[in-house]
Amino acid sequence: MNQELILQELEKQLNVQAGNEAILETIQSLKPYDLSELINQLSFEHKQQVITLLPTDIAAETLEYLEPEDQYEILHQLNDELASLLLNEMSSDAVVDMLLAIHPYQAETLLKLLPDDYRKQINELMSFPEHTAGALMTLDYISARSHWSVAQTLEHIRKVGHEAEIISYIYVVNSRGKLVGVVSLKEVILTDPHIRLFEIVTKDVISVPADLEQEEVATILSRYDFYALPVVDHQNRLLGIITFDDVVDVIQEEATEDFQKLGGSQPLTEPYFKTTVFDLFRKRIVWLLILFIGGAYTSNVLSSFQDIINRVVALSFFIPLLIGTGGNTGSQIVTTLVRALGVGEVKFKDLFKVLKKEIITGILLGVALGMVAYLRAWLLEVQTNICYVVALSAFSIVIWSSLVSAILPLILHRLRIDPAVVSGPLISTLVDGTGLIIYFSIAKLILHL
Amino acid sequence: MNQELILQELEKQLNVQAGNEAILETIQSLKPYDLSELINQLSFEHKQQVITLLPTDIAAETLEYLEPEDQYEILHQLNDELASLLLNEMSSDAVVDMLLAIHPYQAETLLKLLPDDYRKQINELMSFPEHTAGALMTLDYISARSHWSVAQTLEHIRKVGHEAEIISYIYVVNSRGKLVGVVSLKEVILTDPHIRLFEIVTKDVISVPADLEQEEVATILSRYDFYALPVVDHQNRLLGIITFDDVVDVIQEEATEDFQKLGGSQPLTEPYFKTTVFDLFRKRIVWLLILFIGGAYTSNVLSSFQDIINRVVALSFFIPLLIGTGGNTGSQIVTTLVRALGVGEVKFKDLFKVLKKEIITGILLGVALGMVAYLRAWLLEVQTNICYVVALSAFSIVIWSSLVSAILPLILHRLRIDPAVVSGPLISTLVDGTGLIIYFSIAKLILHL
Repeated sequence: MNQELILQELEKQLNVQAGNEAILETIQSLKPYDLSELINQLSFEHKQQVITLLPTDIAAETLEYLEPEDQYEILHQLNDELASLLLNEMSSDAVVDMLLAIHPYQAETLLKLLPDDYRKQINELMSFPEHTAGALMTLDYISARSHWSVAQTLEHIRKVGHEAEIISYIYVVNSRGKLVGVVSLKEVILTDPHIRLFEIVTKDVISVPADLEQEEVATILSRYDFYALPVVDHQNRLLGIITFDDVVDVIQEEATEDFQKLGGSQPLTEPYFKTTVFDLFRKRIVWLLILFIGGAYTSNVLSSFQDIINRVVALSFFIPLLIGTGGNTGSQIVTTLVRALGVGEVKFKDLFKVLKKEIITGILLGVALGMVAYLRAWLLEVQTNICYVVALSAFSIVIWSSLVSAILPLILHRLRIDPAVVSGPLISTLVDGTGLIIYFSIAKLILHL
Repeated sequence: MNQELILQELEKQLNVQAGNEAILETIQSLKPYDLSELINQLSFEHKQQVITLLPTDIAAETLEYLEPEDQYEILHQLNDELASLLLNEMSSDAVVDMLLAIHPYQAETLLKLLPDDYRKQINELMSFPEHTAGALMTLDYISARSHWSVAQTLEHIRKVGHEAEIISYIYVVNSRGKLVGVVSLKEVILTDPHIRLFEIVTKDVISVPADLEQEEVATILSRYDFYALPVVDHQNRLLGIITFDDVVDVIQEEATEDFQKLGGSQPLTEPYFKTTVFDLFRKRIVWLLILFIGGAYTSNVLSSFQDIINRVVALSFFIPLLIGTGGNTGSQIVTTLVRALGVGEVKFKDLFKVLKKEIITGILLGVALGMVAYLRAWLLEVQTNICYVVALSAFSIVIWSSLVSAILPLILHRLRIDPAVVSGPLISTLVDGTGLIIYFSIAKLILHL
């Protein structure tokens, strides 16, 4: 049965107040994500009703996929006992994300539903700055002591495992809470029950400090192919873990940001449809103004060559085409390099290697485009001399643009400025004016103006 | 000890032929990924020597991170027994990736080292087309039968678990190999040993067909936050599983491709430094030529307005600035929308919602940029009338560009053409010529030419 049919069926049952069993039957084969998609399309009363009907663990996981406002409204309208049960069942990072997104006063009312200890922990989690390891982590991990036997550890996992977000790793801590090792569940399962953990523990644990930037967390986790990474404080005390699913989200988020930057806009902080028109305006106008002002000197360049344009008006015909080609060449290089810098494929020390590669490629592209440009001018039946000017300019502008686009991202990266600010539009703007100077200088020379 | 120091120490030990124990001590705290980074910097003899010294499982995992050529050279130079041991220990998807990347003749010599059954399976895996679920999957999963008890299942995991890539899920199949359910290791651990699997199995398994595109595999896995997804054939027989780490790689790859497309280039198939100059040229020239030819009509447009330019040469001063601004506005919208389409935030049915949002934002941006354009013209001391023309053109071009950039990606997406072909450069080229027509039409009207 597809989503659409399930929705229709469910709405019908909810409207005629069908028995809970009928409704449950309709939704019981669905995963939490699918349930959340369904719930998003229901009226508020029905949203709440479906949540109440689900088993607690499924209800909690489904809630995690909903928007913070919906999460709050549903929890707020439920009776305190059920709300508190669901809040406790939700993973701690999901609770923190919700509490930070809703109004502090609303957050307060939900926090009151938590047991004192857990409330304190959640409050601490909420204090980690956005986009750091601390803000991504969950408390729902399993820890063990190194003198425990494998059997004892399994016993412990059976006791606390249903609360853990993942049980693939068991983190070994000492009496002061310091992280001293990690054992995978696989090792625990495959090892003789009498063996003690210190005999199988991996001591060199890869962990991240709570204040590490989330991009770096993503790099580390995907480099080592771990399911989860432990987060520690400056005394190496275990604070929580970051699971791969949150890291996948970070990778997607960071790529989206880079896309928007490379398109010449400040990154949006919300999904597209949640961004208001005014926010879109604010994010976009900044770079549009910078680029406009940066590009304004093209008018000066052209006005300084106005005598030449007046004498050979045909030169003006090729302005958009030539500077466009320069911008396109630059845009290709910049996007490739910014991405390669982003994923660590290219580093500043490679500057000369990059330069050599791009200049040679630029010469090849310049020759090809120069020939096409000659053809274009010839087809427009301008003087042969002008054809030469256009062809030579296309050649030179492509090489010039390659040079600028190869150097700039690497230098910015070196200066610890995000190279993604060198967007396609920025390179086009930079190359526009300089391209015009090249064009009219060549024209002056060849046409003896 | 940092990477650099470890490398120096290791090279010294390898050169003076220090005892294996000394060398092992230097490298034993390193993870396979770190070992591979180290090995990449060693001479070939030393690469091989380090691999031989490592325990088989670590050696196999380290090999997985190396480049296919290095993997082959090392395995080829080892004695057959050790090479066969390592090949068997490597995960099947890593073996397939290597065999597909090296010369078929080389692949043949390695395949000979595998037991008959496994060789057949690997050969089958190699026949799945690139970028499909089949090409991503590994055979190293754990399956069980539904009448098994939890205790029996655990016993089975203990027996075969060391060969599995992940043991977080146990896939339940029937006597014909059809996938009938899934149980997580967490459930197995937390359940009474006497319970049989059919009592705890989840029957509605999310699986993917072997011919599904890898992007869609990535979407499904990250949507449900699974560690792994089972791959089935058209009879629903279990073929293999895809693990999250390979999906993370796919997400990164796909984002890189989209970056390059949005920059106006065909995506590179190899990392930047492995791409030859000629390949770079080939990938880039295609779009540069398309854009050049597409942009060539700007020359016709300008040549048809040459009388106007002749009479008011000052109009030519603002050509790059105005069409540049149109291109920049378009580039911002296109990158945002292509990404939003890519991650599924925006769909074709949202066309009118998108259009409304972008047109209103466009009007706001148009007003702001129109005012700045007026100022720019005024500062250049051109006639007041020309200032009006420039301001009104900036306003109109921004709105026109918003309209085109909002519609085009959604329509392409609808036509099942990758919307990322609407790159910043393509939009700029489209808007260049139409922008000129808008500009000179406004000029004609206001200046009565």
